[in-house]
Formats: sequence, structure tokens, C-alpha cells
Amino acid sequence: MRIGFDEAEAVMREKLIRHGAGKEEAETVAYEMARNSLEGTYTHGINRFPSVVKNIDDGFIIPGGKMELLSAFGSSERYDGNLGFGIVNARAAIDRAVELAESCGIAVVALRNTNHWLRAATYGLRAAERGFAAICFTNTLPNMPAWGGVDARIGNNPFMMAFPRENGQHFIVDSAMSQYSYGALEIAEQEGRKMPFPAGYDENGVLTDDPSAVIRSRRTLPAGYWKGSAMSILLDVFASSLSMGRSVQEIGHSGGGEYGVSQVFIAIDWKRTADEKTVTAIGDAITADLKSSVPAGSAPIVYPGERLMGIKERNLRDGIPVDERVWKNILSL
Amino acid sequence: MRIGFDEAEAVMREKLIRHGAGKEEAETVAYEMARNSLEGTYTHGINRFPSVVKNIDDGFIIPGGKMELLSAFGSSERYDGNLGFGIVNARAAIDRAVELAESCGIAVVALRNTNHWLRAATYGLRAAERGFAAICFTNTLPNMPAWGGVDARIGNNPFMMAFPRENGQHFIVDSAMSQYSYGALEIAEQEGRKMPFPAGYDENGVLTDDPSAVIRSRRTLPAGYWKGSAMSILLDVFASSLSMGRSVQEIGHSGGGEYGVSQVFIAIDWKRTADEKTVTAIGDAITADLKSSVPAGSAPIVYPGERLMGIKERNLRDGIPVDERVWKNILSL
Repeated sequence: MRIGFDEAEAVMREKLIRHGAGKEEAETVAYEMARNSLEGTYTHGINRFPSVVKNIDDGFIIPGGKMELLSAFGSSERYDGNLGFGIVNARAAIDRAVELAESCGIAVVALRNTNHWLRAATYGLRAAERGFAAICFTNTLPNMPAWGGVDARIGNNPFMMAFPRENGQHFIVDSAMSQYSYGALEIAEQEGRKMPFPAGYDENGVLTDDPSAVIRSRRTLPAGYWKGSAMSILLDVFASSLSMGRSVQEIGHSGGGEYGVSQVFIAIDWKRTADEKTVTAIGDAITADLKSSVPAGSAPIVYPGERLMGIKERNLRDGIPVDERVWKNILSL
Repeated sequence: MRIGFDEAEAVMREKLIRHGAGKEEAETVAYEMARNSLEGTYTHGINRFPSVVKNIDDGFIIPGGKMELLSAFGSSERYDGNLGFGIVNARAAIDRAVELAESCGIAVVALRNTNHWLRAATYGLRAAERGFAAICFTNTLPNMPAWGGVDARIGNNPFMMAFPRENGQHFIVDSAMSQYSYGALEIAEQEGRKMPFPAGYDENGVLTDDPSAVIRSRRTLPAGYWKGSAMSILLDVFASSLSMGRSVQEIGHSGGGEYGVSQVFIAIDWKRTADEKTVTAIGDAITADLKSSVPAGSAPIVYPGERLMGIKERNLRDGIPVDERVWKNILSL
């Protein structure tokens, strides 16, 4: 089924308030979650809403919890998220990084004790809309074995880079360190599909594209094998060290859900040292060159972030695709 | 064969001076290239030396070329590398980023018109040895198709993150955006081996682990498929935009070798906002947790960067493994 953006936003806002959220934070979370779906990140938008409400009810998200400054030096600041809404904290953190970058050209905000920020791209787009470049990352629950290991010790730790372009056609990469999420594996399993590429190891330690085998073994594959594993570990080291927050293993040891994660937000005010017109031309040339690739199939070659605008237009016009059972569940919350 | 560190360094220094390098830059390049091999990055150390000399002779590297400040704001600076030695410029760039980070907590140095920095980890280790965290990346020649394309349009753009630990046991990831380099494919081909994982597409567009097929098709695989492709593009956008330097496509259009690349160096003075003792404990806990993984095979689980120290010790004791033909070639330069 398809739901209009305004309706989705209004329903989620009301449900959040009913479950204890303040008016302002409910507005922020409902808007961003509706927007995640609107822009095509269905896994981290409306479909994920019931789990956010559950996290409030379970006490993992504490309504009213706000970012609190712990220490500051130059354009580097460290905050405690006080277990507030991940979206509210992460928006405040990227906004603060953008503000600090205005005085030093670059800034970093490290945030501990916060919650799932849903879509990493949200914060890159937010910086890009103000003309700033951004690099953001978060840690997660342990949900993937380290390279050479069998049991889940590392996170799929999403990593995001965004660089602004005119007309909102920002360059953006938003990539978890696992090749496929459990969400993607579960959808393929329900539809009886194999994954297009190896997804993990089966219970006998053999690489497989069978989602059911990987769901059983819990041995998901890091993107790029040893490369994604190593990068996941460094992202965790950076996030937990800079914020003095919980590492992936500590998030895992706390039992229950994924809460109290650590995040890093870097903003760059590149227009202070580079010329906007030249940089626009560089981005346009990169895009034009990509698009002149010889295509391997019938699909056009796109730059990272390009699809977002088209999906957004279509979903604004036709409504946002939402799983009917999920929507019914949301209405009943 | 094995060559002592001091001998390798002395021979390369003398050859560089013979080919036009100044004494100081020859010392820097010879030391770092010998050290790359000493610490196990054989592809970007002594074995690569003949190509550095060729780049001097071809006029791609201009001895005496030094980093020149183009613009500055706060802790963000942009430089022209004047086609000097990549190692000399990159060392100066990370040193400057570290210096700037001391005043703002974080700093970025963008460098255009420079040359191959050889091993990305060199600059992360350099920052880590001074107690700073670092994120560095570079663009390259187009050597990989974008996701969905057939012809090489994007670079394997190495990305590096380093976080310091006590006793030199720094966390470090140094990862190109291709799953395998052409160097790795060529070695496997010579030895008649398949790659352990898919390495690219053959001439019929079928995914293959046959190195010869990928060398023929030139369709190497991005690490993590679409993920490595997207990240490669963003690294190029950042490097060429922040430095106002050449993008991957421009490096490709210039004909001839890989020169005049664009690089970014971010340094973080994390001790200004975080407590050293706590951060040490966080790193130790992450390492201990990784090491308590259930191993999939007989190999121990290592943290990223761990192997370096052991290799270095062995190579200091026994000499550095060098291809005999390459060494003879170097002696004849």
C-alpha cells in the first residue's frame, strides 16, 4: 500500500507522543522517519517505526534525553546523548559540527550514549543542504563475525560521506560494513530468492548466496571480506574512543536491544578554502564521466545519491510504499 | 632474496640522487620505501622502486617540487604539491594536519598535483606515532569500472584510518576500493592460482575468481560490489573538490602515467577532549574481545594493524624479502 508523506508523519507523531515523547522531538522523529521512506530508505523509515516505539516502551530510548556537552576544544566537542532519540541527537550533533566548522573550516562532534540514528544519509544531507561536506559513522550491536571468526564480534557500523551539489543533487554514500543486512536476507528468504552475490557462510563454513543458510549460521559477510571487517573495527575504535562511549562489544554485553551507541560527525566548510564554481565543475565532470561508462546491462550508471531525487518525486506524487501489516501495526500502537 | 633495511635504504637513496633527487628528499623517499617493505607492504616498497625512478625520468615526478600553500582558513589548508615526490608531499601534509589539529582539535589538509604516496598506512602511522588519529585518502588513475559499467572510470582510491595505541600497536586500516589490485592478480596468475574470492568479471560479464580472465577483461571488482564503487566515487569527489585538484577521470585523460593526484589528510587531537587512560582501556577491550572470537580456521583473529609489528621484527632480523630480478634491476638504475 502507499501512504502520503503528511499522513505518515502525522500518525507517527501522534503515536510517539502517546508513548511519552515531547511534542518537538516527536515532530523531528516523525518527520525524519517519514522522509527516510519518502527518499527510498524503506528499511530505516516507516517500516522501522514499531521498533522505535518498542525501544521507548523498553526504556532504551528515554524521551526528553538531550545532548549534553562533556568536553570541548577548538572545533572538537564530545557529548553524552543521555539515551535520547537517535534522530534528535544525531541531527543536533551534525548541526553543531556544521556550526563549529564555520570557525575552523572543519569540526568533529563525538556523541556517546545515544540511540540508532536510523538512516546515516539523513545527517549528510542535512550538512549538504547547508553547503557543508560531511563524514559520519556509528557503531552498532555485534552482528557480524570479524574476519577469520565464526561468532558475531563486530558491528555492521554504517559509514557515510556526503558532498553538496547544486539543486540538491548531492553526492552521498551510506554504507553498512556488512554486504547484506539481516533485513535484506529476511526479505529474500520470504520471497524465495537467493542473494545476487555471496552473503555469508553456511553452518559448514562454506560461502553461500542462500539467505536462509546465513540467517541460520549468523555468519554474515563483511563487504569486501577482510576489508569491511577491518574498516568496521576502525570505525568502532574511532566512535567509542572519540566519544569515550560504548564499543560494539559493550553494546553487545549490555543485553537486550541496541542502545547507547557511539557516533562521530565530521563537517567540512570547504568553501572557505576552495572556489565554489570550480568545485561544481569538478563534480559535474565526474558525473558526466561516470554516465559515459559503457553499461554492463540495461541499467544506467548512476552517481551515489542520484536515485534519491527520483524516488522522492515519485513517492511525493503516489505516496510512500509501506508494508500493509506494518502500517496496521503502527495504527494500533 | 633478503636485503637488510640499511642496505636497501642506502641503495635507493643513491639511485634517487643519481636520477636528480635532492639529498633530503632522496633520504625521505628511500627511508619510507624501505620501511614499507620492512613492515610487510612489499607491493609499495622496494619492489615498486623502479617505477618511481621511471616516473622521475618521464618527468611525472619533479625532484625539488614542494608543497605550496594555496589557501587557508582555521585548521583547513589547501596545497599544491608541484608534482614533487608523493612520499615527501604526503609526509609534509600529514605533519601539517597534525600541527593544525593541535590548535582546533581536528584539521584537514587537501593536496593537489602530487604523486603516488606509495603506502597509505605510512601517514596514519606517522600521525599515530605522535598520538593523533588520522583519516587519509587519495585518488588514482581510473582502473576499475563503476558499478554497472564495463570500462574503467573510477579509481581504487585507497582509504586509511589510524588510531594510536601504546607501544606502537596502532589500529590501522589501509584499504583500496578494489577487491584485488592488478599486482595481486598478476602474482596469482604467475603462480597459477585462482583468487580466494571473486576478483572481477570475465569478458562475457560473468563473475570469476580467475585472475587471467580479469586481467584480460580489465573488469576488476570493487570491494563490496556497489559499496566499494560508491565509496570510491565519494573519495574522489572529496579529494578533487577539497584540493581543487584533478579527479580520477582527469588523471586518466592526461595520458601516460599516474601523476598529479589529489589527496586529503585529516588529523584529530583526540586527547584534548577524551581521557587517554579510558581510551586505552576501550582499545584494549576491543582487541581482547576480537581475540576471543571462535576461529573459523587455524589462523588467529588479528586486529587491523597487528601483523605489522611481527613482520617488522622478522624483517629487521632476517632482512627484507625482495624479488631478486627487481633488486638486480634497482642496482642497475
